[in-house]
Amino acid sequence: MLRVFVTGGTFDKTYDEIRGQLSFRETHVPEMLRLGRSRVDLIVETLMMIDSLDMTAGDRARIVTRCVECVEREIVITHGTDTMVETARALAEGVTDKTVVLTGAMIPYAFGSSDGLFNLGSALSFAQVLPPGIYIAMNGQCFPWDHVRKNRETGVFESE
Amino acid sequence: MLRVFVTGGTFDKTYDEIRGQLSFRETHVPEMLRLGRSRVDLIVETLMMIDSLDMTAGDRARIVTRCVECVEREIVITHGTDTMVETARALAEGVTDKTVVLTGAMIPYAFGSSDGLFNLGSALSFAQVLPPGIYIAMNGQCFPWDHVRKNRETGVFESE
Amino acid sequence: MLRVFVTGGTFDKTYDEIRGQLSFRETHVPEMLRLGRSRVDLIVETLMMIDSLDMTAGDRARIVTRCVECVEREIVITHGTDTMVETARALAEGVTDKTVVLTGAMIPYAFGSSDGLFNLGSALSFAQVLPPGIYIAMNGQCFPWDHVRKNRETGVFESE
Amino acid sequence: MLRVFVTGGTFDKTYDEIRGQLSFRETHVPEMLRLGRSRVDLIVETLMMIDSLDMTAGDRARIVTRCVECVEREIVITHGTDTMVETARALAEGVTDKTVVLTGAMIPYAFGSSDGLFNLGSALSFAQVLPPGIYIAMNGQCFPWDHVRKNRETGVFESE
Repeated sequence: MLRVFVTGGTFDKTYDEIRGQLSFRETHVPEMLRLGRSRVDLIVETLMMIDSLDMTAGDRARIVTRCVECVEREIVITHGTDTMVETARALAEGVTDKTVVLTGAMIPYAFGSSDGLFNLGSALSFAQVLPPGIYIAMNGQCFPWDHVRKNRETGVFESE
Repeated sequence: MLRVFVTGGTFDKTYDEIRGQLSFRETHVPEMLRLGRSRVDLIVETLMMIDSLDMTAGDRARIVTRCVECVEREIVITHGTDTMVETARALAEGVTDKTVVLTGAMIPYAFGSSDGLFNLGSALSFAQVLPPGIYIAMNGQCFPWDHVRKNRETGVFESE
Repeated sequence: MLRVFVTGGTFDKTYDEIRGQLSFRETHVPEMLRLGRSRVDLIVETLMMIDSLDMTAGDRARIVTRCVECVEREIVITHGTDTMVETARALAEGVTDKTVVLTGAMIPYAFGSSDGLFNLGSALSFAQVLPPGIYIAMNGQCFPWDHVRKNRETGVFESE
Repeated sequence: MLRVFVTGGTFDKTYDEIRGQLSFRETHVPEMLRLGRSRVDLIVETLMMIDSLDMTAGDRARIVTRCVECVEREIVITHGTDTMVETARALAEGVTDKTVVLTGAMIPYAFGSSDGLFNLGSALSFAQVLPPGIYIAMNGQCFPWDHVRKNRETGVFESE
């Protein structure tokens, strides 16, 4: 059994047609799993729906706590890309003996041309086979939490 | 370095608007990799573009030969689901010391609501981390070649 | 008030993922109207769900009869492109004092890259403002029924 | 011959994946015409790419001037919905003897689930058949410029 924690991020941004702005409503993860015809035995739990730039130390502590508390040993976390590495670091300090894979998207799933579906398939796969540890899976690649950074100019995660 | 062999299948079916039928043209794999913003270091090689029900023993021999010949040790094969297990068996007899992951789709990528992008992200991920062997990756799951069958009624791959 | 008669055609073709073939299920017209946020006051009535190459004289008679019977004077008919002109001719013989616009698609709506949504918006608009008569609306253009033919090589409707 | 003037609006909003914000780049109108397989004889001219809330009196004057100057007598203008009625009023004062149809979208075309393609098909159709005047075409409906308002709560254009 695997658990998916949803925290928001570009992955789940949607377009508010009355206000003409980006916003968050419900997570798209269940719809994406249906579209991907996923048969992975998993539970989806929404922890928060926020831009990762707005994520506080308290939010991170809550993510760590839930990862420690849950019975599953394979975990995927959907997360904004801007502070994904920071949350990975917090997880590395608090979670042991579990495989935790953070993933996200550069384009909102709702916008039709998203990398999110590709990344979700990738993250779920890495989470099932990698040894315990904290990882970031983006663009088909998987990085240990302490050897990755987001290149702010290109928007791409790179080995470090 | 990873190599993707394209053989056709539902994955790559397209709609021929003049004849009103399903057909094959060029593979969509490069476009899917762009959409997924894949940064996996890989080469795409089209071996054939056929429905897997039309695949002959000669076609299978060619797939096995190319898997043996190529220098890459991580291989993903896109393939029709109907005879994917049969090709996996042929690969198990001919390929050693390489990680070969077959994948496909239930819905053509070109039809907008495909499981193909999810499966491609998944297959590329499994191919990078699993030990040598022949596997089938569908719906977020990964099966050893000799413990899987396609349920013809539901269209789903199951452990056996 | 406007009435939309659904008869099938490429417009409504869908992909049968178990059999790997094109097929018909329910019409996509209501979903397309939702996507287009249509506020046209209309009723959708499915008369048949067939490829227009399979349409019989009896089927055409039924379409004519329903166009005559219904109270609405503005009518849109979704129809396969192959015999759209033939049905238009049958309508011209049987329907007077109503504006009937036939439309269709070269690519199924379900395939993501359809011309169907564009054509539906176009046909509904022509039906609201053109004088009584039988018309074919395709690709943003509108032709009187007796001055149009489908070019089988290009798939395009042309003035004649 | 018909002319399409592009001014921006939700229609053409796109997602800036580096900054995580909505922005404008090139117009999607040519791509939408290709998707709709439009065969309407037309020219696309981009006048500006702005949110209609940012449109100045000078911008409106420029739109009016171009509508007067161009040789075409059928004109479609893509425009943000928030001030579409205001621009329509400016056009009514400055343009005579031409059919001008303003249209827009509630959801950006680039987001996959847009009403834009439906509205574009509709606006091009109305522009070809309505008598000279200034109109707003949204959601399959067409309103004379002086009998329409946008309901800010529902986001819908209504007769007035």
